[in-house]
Amino acid sequence: MSSPETARLLIHCPDKPGLVHDVTGFISAHQGNIIDLQQHIDPGENAFFMRIEWSINDFTLERAEIGPRLGALVRRHEMSWKLSFSSERRRVALFVSKENHCLYDLLARHEAGDLSVDIAVIVSNHEILRPAAERFGIPFAHFPITKENRIQQEAAQIEMLGEHRVDTVVLARYMQIISPALIEKYTHQILNIHHSFLPAFVGAKPYHQAYERGVKIIGATSHYVTAELDQGPIIHQDVMRVSHEDSVSDLVRLGRDLEKTVLAKALLWHVEDKVLVYKNKTVVFA
Amino acid sequence: MSSPETARLLIHCPDKPGLVHDVTGFISAHQGNIIDLQQHIDPGENAFFMRIEWSINDFTLERAEIGPRLGALVRRHEMSWKLSFSSERRRVALFVSKENHCLYDLLARHEAGDLSVDIAVIVSNHEILRPAAERFGIPFAHFPITKENRIQQEAAQIEMLGEHRVDTVVLARYMQIISPALIEKYTHQILNIHHSFLPAFVGAKPYHQAYERGVKIIGATSHYVTAELDQGPIIHQDVMRVSHEDSVSDLVRLGRDLEKTVLAKALLWHVEDKVLVYKNKTVVFA
Amino acid sequence: MSSPETARLLIHCPDKPGLVHDVTGFISAHQGNIIDLQQHIDPGENAFFMRIEWSINDFTLERAEIGPRLGALVRRHEMSWKLSFSSERRRVALFVSKENHCLYDLLARHEAGDLSVDIAVIVSNHEILRPAAERFGIPFAHFPITKENRIQQEAAQIEMLGEHRVDTVVLARYMQIISPALIEKYTHQILNIHHSFLPAFVGAKPYHQAYERGVKIIGATSHYVTAELDQGPIIHQDVMRVSHEDSVSDLVRLGRDLEKTVLAKALLWHVEDKVLVYKNKTVVFA
Amino acid sequence: MSSPETARLLIHCPDKPGLVHDVTGFISAHQGNIIDLQQHIDPGENAFFMRIEWSINDFTLERAEIGPRLGALVRRHEMSWKLSFSSERRRVALFVSKENHCLYDLLARHEAGDLSVDIAVIVSNHEILRPAAERFGIPFAHFPITKENRIQQEAAQIEMLGEHRVDTVVLARYMQIISPALIEKYTHQILNIHHSFLPAFVGAKPYHQAYERGVKIIGATSHYVTAELDQGPIIHQDVMRVSHEDSVSDLVRLGRDLEKTVLAKALLWHVEDKVLVYKNKTVVFA
Repeated sequence: MSSPETARLLIHCPDKPGLVHDVTGFISAHQGNIIDLQQHIDPGENAFFMRIEWSINDFTLERAEIGPRLGALVRRHEMSWKLSFSSERRRVALFVSKENHCLYDLLARHEAGDLSVDIAVIVSNHEILRPAAERFGIPFAHFPITKENRIQQEAAQIEMLGEHRVDTVVLARYMQIISPALIEKYTHQILNIHHSFLPAFVGAKPYHQAYERGVKIIGATSHYVTAELDQGPIIHQDVMRVSHEDSVSDLVRLGRDLEKTVLAKALLWHVEDKVLVYKNKTVVFA
Repeated sequence: MSSPETARLLIHCPDKPGLVHDVTGFISAHQGNIIDLQQHIDPGENAFFMRIEWSINDFTLERAEIGPRLGALVRRHEMSWKLSFSSERRRVALFVSKENHCLYDLLARHEAGDLSVDIAVIVSNHEILRPAAERFGIPFAHFPITKENRIQQEAAQIEMLGEHRVDTVVLARYMQIISPALIEKYTHQILNIHHSFLPAFVGAKPYHQAYERGVKIIGATSHYVTAELDQGPIIHQDVMRVSHEDSVSDLVRLGRDLEKTVLAKALLWHVEDKVLVYKNKTVVFA
Repeated sequence: MSSPETARLLIHCPDKPGLVHDVTGFISAHQGNIIDLQQHIDPGENAFFMRIEWSINDFTLERAEIGPRLGALVRRHEMSWKLSFSSERRRVALFVSKENHCLYDLLARHEAGDLSVDIAVIVSNHEILRPAAERFGIPFAHFPITKENRIQQEAAQIEMLGEHRVDTVVLARYMQIISPALIEKYTHQILNIHHSFLPAFVGAKPYHQAYERGVKIIGATSHYVTAELDQGPIIHQDVMRVSHEDSVSDLVRLGRDLEKTVLAKALLWHVEDKVLVYKNKTVVFA
Repeated sequence: MSSPETARLLIHCPDKPGLVHDVTGFISAHQGNIIDLQQHIDPGENAFFMRIEWSINDFTLERAEIGPRLGALVRRHEMSWKLSFSSERRRVALFVSKENHCLYDLLARHEAGDLSVDIAVIVSNHEILRPAAERFGIPFAHFPITKENRIQQEAAQIEMLGEHRVDTVVLARYMQIISPALIEKYTHQILNIHHSFLPAFVGAKPYHQAYERGVKIIGATSHYVTAELDQGPIIHQDVMRVSHEDSVSDLVRLGRDLEKTVLAKALLWHVEDKVLVYKNKTVVFA
């Protein structure tokens, strides 16, 4: 059973009566059949959020026409909006350092057909995972970072990403700070996996911090990268139970299972345009 | 901050384009403001499901008019539907036997204002929990059940429930089979808590069964009661990890925490009309 | 099936070969049968921890003799140790403010026989929960706290706890800071339930903080109270998934289920002497 | 920090006083230092279980001497026992069919150094995953199975496993029934991952069964393979929440994350001799 091609519209705007009716009216008027509709209202902010996905197999507008034709509607309601299509595959760069677990996990999902993106390039500040990239036939770009070359390398990275037409960056356990220029160019398009239950244990060596504090549960958090370290909008989190029996290295090892599944799920939601950022928080239409 | 009065409409019908637009049109036309809208499509069944809740503070129709005025719409789309109002409190009977944990849990939630129902009566086949009922000032009805008196007692129960104008029955660890007459009279209005992760360990002594099988996780399941024992539509389930260290009596004790939270959550969803039954399964607009 | 009377020995000391053999030798020599033995080694600290529980039905030493006769052994290994007996019931004071969920939960467990303690007194800075105490026939002590009377009231509390021969204090959602004098008198005998996944959201209004940060999981933490607010050794934690759909008041309501089960489990472990505090962390022989 | 070489002794026998003391006496007498000791008593069965691990860096017995010298002790207490050493690496065969997720997950863990075994061979009834094996440089053995060749192929498999000196077989989503001869030869050395929360949904297509029943939680179970299908001793289980939104294919996709982590954890415990089988259940000294 093949899935129909769909259009997906993410919206947020001030709340008022009639919004759902108006948007669904546009779709009905052009013979679209709604496959999924989720809306959310934040009464405190008087804010309206919606994700709507509809089959465009019989739609009477061409893909390129839909955006322009939405113009009057979205202006009338002061809507922020994003339109995308299931047929457009994201082009993803995977940034890694030395640890392989998130990388292999994403590559295996991709090979199994569970992650509908193009993996354009694997980027690393080390050579260690080059063989992993080669095994899967994906270009590997090595950018060693030192104090001296950092600024040049960051510029070179951005250029390289442009050449590969990358639109989404995944920090799959990349242990370098991302440059402000890269963050600005890929606003809310850079996903990180932090190995703690944020906001607990911000910064370096979170498993060591967790061990020191004696917590009984550890976690992992996937968030969009923003200028402030580990403070970006949280997309997904998961946790597992630990005990006094677990050493720091046990926590590191156990935590990898969290990290890879949390990052993969966040990426999946991201590429299906299920995540809407609003005031440093996310609305996830999962 | 007081919540507005709302109307809630649960719908299912054959899927086709324009359904959301039509229903939201009815609400817009009478100045209703949608507070929550969730829809679900089952492509295999070509079935459409929706729950929509809107503020009726400024609605231009009286409550009693809304149902009749929906008539043309629901007939056109062959909709099964249910309309209710946040201002109408359910009248609940709690059936118990000897164990107090689900009973006290529901009474405490009720007293704290977290369970917006009227607890009309507590029903039991034992006298043991009468003091609990009296402490909270709730009528207690004792129906001892024997082979000889079962049929009479079941009839008397139904009459008593009618006198208390009960519309929802909660089996809060009631260890008797419910009569077919009661099940028929309260179709999908009787909630049970089963102390296993159904469909594992159907029937009696599920914790003993779990212990014998050596499972590493135990569960609890809240479901609507139907004619077939432990086979009704599942509303909610939860689980917890156990180990070889746990004896049967440990499982019984640990499981109580699952039972009370699972039952309470299912009841909350039920009284807010968030649960729609379809083909022995539930759609839960949680 | 009645449980045998048992003795329980909690030990920690510098690690070295032969410790388990020596302690079990003492028990064997006096005809004790070990029911549970758990040990833990922290290699980084070279620290040894053990909990051992044995039947004393046929033990050849009287209860009062056991401690003195252990003297040579514990001195030889520089052991910190604590001996207790299953037949000795803790005397517990429950401190509450306005919220009833933890209180009712503990009272219901107690009535069901799942919490083998004496609940000596319920203490509150408000009158609101007096009826709850009266329903269960437990003394209620009202200590309203103002800036002016704080020091006097705290002294009066300590005296009152002494009169009730209280050995364990449970802060069951008590919204006042505990006095240093009380903390010192009941070192590692005061359990608190904090409504966040500590160390995230230390201090006041943790659910508000969680909402603001947009976390996808909320938690509750039971810990021993120490001089530094919310920094005491963590005994138990649990979490649940939330989403953008959940308002602050939803988090408050949902979190109550965590709070009551986490506090109850921590208390159960505490009264069975399964918790050993070491360097502001706990070893929990659960 | 390198770990010391350790010996590990798994024991079960009838319970009686003095068992721990006797076993630890043997270790002390030869200068062993206990690193981990866990014991469990099943009072209903009067059965005693223990796992004890000790450093043999300074042990006064050679590895080959330990077993024979334990003889008198284990005979005296009628102990079933198993001795192994951390320095002995298991030789594992991975059986797969078409799905890659468990295979890649285990290969990545192995490459990261988290799984201390030798992966001797990958066995499959299909050619599909040969490239995966080749990428990681592991021999791939293709045994297509038909009605006609089944008996011959099963015999050939056993012979091939012998040639590779395999001692542990992992069914990493292998969709064929294992032959009685193989099960007998590798008693409690064959681990399977079943894609349901056993005993719910035994047999084929468990996610379809789960979807039909409308469960709100799905699971995965790793168990030892015995003659009776899906009835072997359960080693580990885990679950995740699902909803009416999830189609069968969603359940299949989501469940893969459970399957791979549950299987990996069970295998880790198995190769560290933390799992003891007793009456079709496991004692897991995790």
